Amino acid sequence: MTDADPHCLFCRIAAGTEAADLVLDTPDVVAFLDTRPVFKGHTLVIPRQHVETIVEAPTTLVPPLFTAVQRIAGAVVPAFDAQGSFVATNSRVSQSVPHLHVHVVPRTKGDGLRGFFWPRTKYSSAEEARDYAGRLRDALG
Amino acid sequence: MTDADPHCLFCRIAAGTEAADLVLDTPDVVAFLDTRPVFKGHTLVIPRQHVETIVEAPTTLVPPLFTAVQRIAGAVVPAFDAQGSFVATNSRVSQSVPHLHVHVVPRTKGDGLRGFFWPRTKYSSAEEARDYAGRLRDALG
Repeated sequence: MTDADPHCLFCRIAAGTEAADLVLDTPDVVAFLDTRPVFKGHTLVIPRQHVETIVEAPTTLVPPLFTAVQRIAGAVVPAFDAQGSFVATNSRVSQSVPHLHVHVVPRTKGDGLRGFFWPRTKYSSAEEARDYAGRLRDALG
Repeated sequence: MTDADPHCLFCRIAAGTEAADLVLDTPDVVAFLDTRPVFKGHTLVIPRQHVETIVEAPTTLVPPLFTAVQRIAGAVVPAFDAQGSFVATNSRVSQSVPHLHVHVVPRTKGDGLRGFFWPRTKYSSAEEARDYAGRLRDALG
């Protein structure tokens, strides 16, 4: 699949018409270094096909994309003497390039990337939590 | 697959012996609300099988897990009047429960979850970036 958008930076990287430090290059998926890494070795994994977010991805694209993410999450540990990894994808909000991309960031204890999941909030009651779960189940259909 | 660890909180939730606000319940995958959400509606998607991180997951588990993540990332938008979502999994570092779990957090512009990917750093030279990409390609084998 190409369905490339010539105005899309990540489509051009996938097509080889824009330079990038490639990490993986398969029929469905390309991975390359983020030029402004959270930590050095921070990799972006993208489908070749231009889809905006994980939600719009054809279901056939999910296995090759996340199998590549899994491989890279494993490989950053020995490659960069890391202890673990952080895998994330933003959809629409906080998404800088509107071409689905999954961040894989090597992690080491004490590396300072600690604030991203805080502060946490609480449900005001068990009923409120049940209501939220019910709304999501309804939306899943 | 069960391979449940009775000492694991998430295995007990998957088995139904620990209470949770369930969102999805399939043969391979269970999803439920995080009790201390980043934003209300924050959901954790887990495989029933006890594996510690995405790296250890059998490759057969990747498609059903991330297909469920995809569905939930789509559903949080109408369920919670959100504009997008944040999908993430921590491996070993910053991982509070050692049973693979993928966070799906509803996002709205201006919701304040902005600091998690900053500050960014830079490669000192094009050569340094090439070296990092090469180390990761080598680790991928």
